[in-house]
Amino acid sequence: MKESGRKQGAASPCAACKLLRRRCAQDCVFAPYFPADEPQKFANVHKVFGASNVNKMLQELPVHQRGDAVSSIVYEANARVRDPVYGCVGAISSLQQQIDTLQTQLALTQAEVVHLRVRQTASFPHGFCPTSPSNSGSPTFKLMGSQTMPIFDMDMVVD
Amino acid sequence: MKESGRKQGAASPCAACKLLRRRCAQDCVFAPYFPADEPQKFANVHKVFGASNVNKMLQELPVHQRGDAVSSIVYEANARVRDPVYGCVGAISSLQQQIDTLQTQLALTQAEVVHLRVRQTASFPHGFCPTSPSNSGSPTFKLMGSQTMPIFDMDMVVD
Repeated sequence: MKESGRKQGAASPCAACKLLRRRCAQDCVFAPYFPADEPQKFANVHKVFGASNVNKMLQELPVHQRGDAVSSIVYEANARVRDPVYGCVGAISSLQQQIDTLQTQLALTQAEVVHLRVRQTASFPHGFCPTSPSNSGSPTFKLMGSQTMPIFDMDMVVD
Repeated sequence: MKESGRKQGAASPCAACKLLRRRCAQDCVFAPYFPADEPQKFANVHKVFGASNVNKMLQELPVHQRGDAVSSIVYEANARVRDPVYGCVGAISSLQQQIDTLQTQLALTQAEVVHLRVRQTASFPHGFCPTSPSNSGSPTFKLMGSQTMPIFDMDMVVD
């Protein structure tokens, strides 16, 4: 059987067509993103999403967005292979826990600053104070809470 | 044609079997997680992952982990339907940006605390200082940086 590569003079099909044992056409939707020398990259995507679904997903996107879509699909597939129960949702949970911890630490530290300033103001109501904000030249800050994005407004089933 | 429900006396198949137009057997792997009254829940999962792949993924897990696996799969599928380019990896990026912002804010606020304390110590080297840590009774804190988890050690393709 004559093998037909995607590129002129290239004998080998892309990693997707190789795994699917099919001819790699000139306009193969997978070929730009799944080179022959990275077979595992497509193998995980195929295992988790299925070649047919990924094909449809890519076809529905304009060409300039397909690279990003493949990157996120590969990331999700690898995460699911590593963690079959939680996939990349496990990473989301970990990141949210980190955010909770950071927000608590930030609130405590901001309270520390307020506390230090209130005490110094109470002790030096009319005179020079070495730790006064107007003398310190130190950085300012604002509360982070209002910047938290509503990421988890998607449906999430909890048993 | 006689319809065979999963539960005794229940005539309707689960949402998965209904969509796939097949008989819902007593031991249907989907039935506990995809009830007939939530058709969209399975529709998105089927569109993104494919029923066959999800069936395999669930079969490979012990029963007590399947509920969590379905939750994360449904979450990922909904995220992909809402954002066909980035899926739930978009949420991960947003969360990481929030963490970066919080870490910067925390570092600045911690520097503010140190700054206030150094100035007061320099001004009150031997006597009582109203903002001394030993007098303040205020909360303590520690740096967050070392607690950051290495979530992004998975392969991520960047074009």
